[in-house]
Amino acid sequence: MTITTAEELDERNPFRGHRELFDVPDGVIYLNGNSLGALPRGVPGRLQEVITREWGAGLIRSWNDADWIGLHRRVGDRIAPLVGAAAGDVHVGDSTSVSLFKTMVVALRMRPHRRVIVVEPSTFPTDGYVAQGVARLTGAELRWCDPADPLAAVDDDVALLALTHVDFRTGAMYDLPGITAAAHERGALVQWDLCHSAGAVPVDLTRADADVAVGCTYKYLNGGPGSPAFTWIAPRLQADIDQPITGWMGHARPFAMERDYVPLPGIAQMASGTHPVLALSALDAALEVYDGVSMADLRATSLSLTDLFVSLVSSRFGDALPVVTPLDHARRGSQVSLRHPQAYGLVQALIARGVIGDFRDPDIARFGFAPLYVTHADVRDAVEQLAAVLDKGEHLDPSYAERNAVT
Amino acid sequence: MTITTAEELDERNPFRGHRELFDVPDGVIYLNGNSLGALPRGVPGRLQEVITREWGAGLIRSWNDADWIGLHRRVGDRIAPLVGAAAGDVHVGDSTSVSLFKTMVVALRMRPHRRVIVVEPSTFPTDGYVAQGVARLTGAELRWCDPADPLAAVDDDVALLALTHVDFRTGAMYDLPGITAAAHERGALVQWDLCHSAGAVPVDLTRADADVAVGCTYKYLNGGPGSPAFTWIAPRLQADIDQPITGWMGHARPFAMERDYVPLPGIAQMASGTHPVLALSALDAALEVYDGVSMADLRATSLSLTDLFVSLVSSRFGDALPVVTPLDHARRGSQVSLRHPQAYGLVQALIARGVIGDFRDPDIARFGFAPLYVTHADVRDAVEQLAAVLDKGEHLDPSYAERNAVT
Repeated sequence: MTITTAEELDERNPFRGHRELFDVPDGVIYLNGNSLGALPRGVPGRLQEVITREWGAGLIRSWNDADWIGLHRRVGDRIAPLVGAAAGDVHVGDSTSVSLFKTMVVALRMRPHRRVIVVEPSTFPTDGYVAQGVARLTGAELRWCDPADPLAAVDDDVALLALTHVDFRTGAMYDLPGITAAAHERGALVQWDLCHSAGAVPVDLTRADADVAVGCTYKYLNGGPGSPAFTWIAPRLQADIDQPITGWMGHARPFAMERDYVPLPGIAQMASGTHPVLALSALDAALEVYDGVSMADLRATSLSLTDLFVSLVSSRFGDALPVVTPLDHARRGSQVSLRHPQAYGLVQALIARGVIGDFRDPDIARFGFAPLYVTHADVRDAVEQLAAVLDKGEHLDPSYAERNAVT
Repeated sequence: MTITTAEELDERNPFRGHRELFDVPDGVIYLNGNSLGALPRGVPGRLQEVITREWGAGLIRSWNDADWIGLHRRVGDRIAPLVGAAAGDVHVGDSTSVSLFKTMVVALRMRPHRRVIVVEPSTFPTDGYVAQGVARLTGAELRWCDPADPLAAVDDDVALLALTHVDFRTGAMYDLPGITAAAHERGALVQWDLCHSAGAVPVDLTRADADVAVGCTYKYLNGGPGSPAFTWIAPRLQADIDQPITGWMGHARPFAMERDYVPLPGIAQMASGTHPVLALSALDAALEVYDGVSMADLRATSLSLTDLFVSLVSSRFGDALPVVTPLDHARRGSQVSLRHPQAYGLVQALIARGVIGDFRDPDIARFGFAPLYVTHADVRDAVEQLAAVLDKGEHLDPSYAERNAVT
């Protein structure tokens, strides 16, 4: 692989123009969009408009005049095609953890004669923590499964198998349609956490006949730090939704101010409180970068980027820096993780050189390739910087005392 | 009361300069800050800074470099003195409904041998809806009380009495310390919903020996549409917190990515998911308008405004427009509600004249007096407009077909 080749790959990339839709700082190679997506250029202007014109001048009238009241649905409709959902079937509003809580309770209630929730121990921590809380609250049993074979834990007692589509540490991807079908044969529902796949990896919830999905919007979807999560529940299951946090925005007639709770039909009843208008407006503007994007084409670019990274790292460093992420395309998300005993120092030294990835305990350096703004030239340059760090022993510098923060 | 008098009252108002801290549009008399607070001038600049510099340029590094990781605590510390709480005891992050859900479950778990939750039927709807969901989920019994005497429903079976401090329809205020003490004598905990009091009415949770409180930040606290709610739990109860939505941000070591949930100590364990950085940043900037504000002085201004409104309305319209809100200062929040058979038309006609209040089913026109930006001249002018509407019969105009939106 030569310098010319990386640039040729960029020439052929159908998304080469999309980088201009983002405000990626000069001198930075950003390989952490799987943790916090870069800033889409349309966001600052939209937020100013929402704050000064809609809130400042419009005041309370903007719930109608600016249709704040329908904002969470509009945002849901933008996300829907990215995950193979129909318009009107995606709710957006709470944090990922709160969304996972609600959907886990909903799923358990759909299988009242089964009492086990299966979770893999290497899932993103909040998924496991929420499942622990749900199990204790509902009297369900939490069963940890073998990450390599989650279906082995699914028997006739299992109400819900809750899995993360793409593993946050390794970048390994489960076979979403295959596992869903196999769990269905055993009578269980499956909840997919799409946090590390939505927006970078094609997901077709409808075609997979999936049950429930929750995903984050501040990673590949670029909604900004702490932006609200999305929730999808299969249309065939929506009539049986019985969610635990029955707030007024999920009520059939919120402004009638009735005493008794009556849910809205469909996914809309997953709403609880007043939705976060500023955060949803930022997300709405951010999602415009997906206008007209083919997820199949985006996947091709993502694989081209990760293939290049894997190939350069393997040929250059070999066993000194093993690739943890599956080489099989069908098992790979949009990130590549490397194992190194000084992974923490490695990541810190790279950040000092303007290559931003992140570290995960105990020995993983992970690099996300957001295909809308990462280029093949970035990949090549990142590997050059990695070589320089290792050559100079910068990863051994004990002054890198502070740990990198949030996924 | 003469025109001179309203202006004299404004001259004497210690907060007369505070209106300049808000961007209230010209030609608008805004009496709906009890629904959505006006825009503090510091917010747009702060948000631009957070979006372009912290998110855009800082990217993931801002979790440390801009201390996003501590943002919810800093905001909680700004709210604490406004409700008589100590720094470090207020959590901010989820919607009001989600916060009410968590604290109701927490409170019920603190009284495991009691199984009743008491709610008043005229409370803000989401409080009752959430209580219905909590009761069903936990097996508790929901008991509706007489709003005029909630303590009558509190017997030895009651774990939690959940009340709204200031009623959203009538503006009537409960005796928070008195009811808390009486409920404690019966062994029950009390949860106070401070949505319609925080930031306008002095609340001293510590002095009242209160148990649990939740409040909205987009009304008098001006955090912007859908801004996150705050939660307080008495320090003496914090060791017994056992909250249901056990997410990673409430974990003792979130970045250790451990399998098992171990809560942070204190109020911090009420966090679930990643906190909404953009919304919290807007709220943080908005709360600066409270720097140096004495809540006792603010209460004096609030009462002066509502006294003036009540006096002008009563003398001018008498029984044609009865005041629903208690005249007794000790029972009055910072709003005044009027009853009229055409209340909806009345409010719409006033809005057309630039006086923004709002309507509540079936016959209430309500007006909020946010003492940091509403003036006595506003009060006088609003009553003039009200008189003009009634004189010309504008409230009878059937063209006002659309209803006003969100509290």
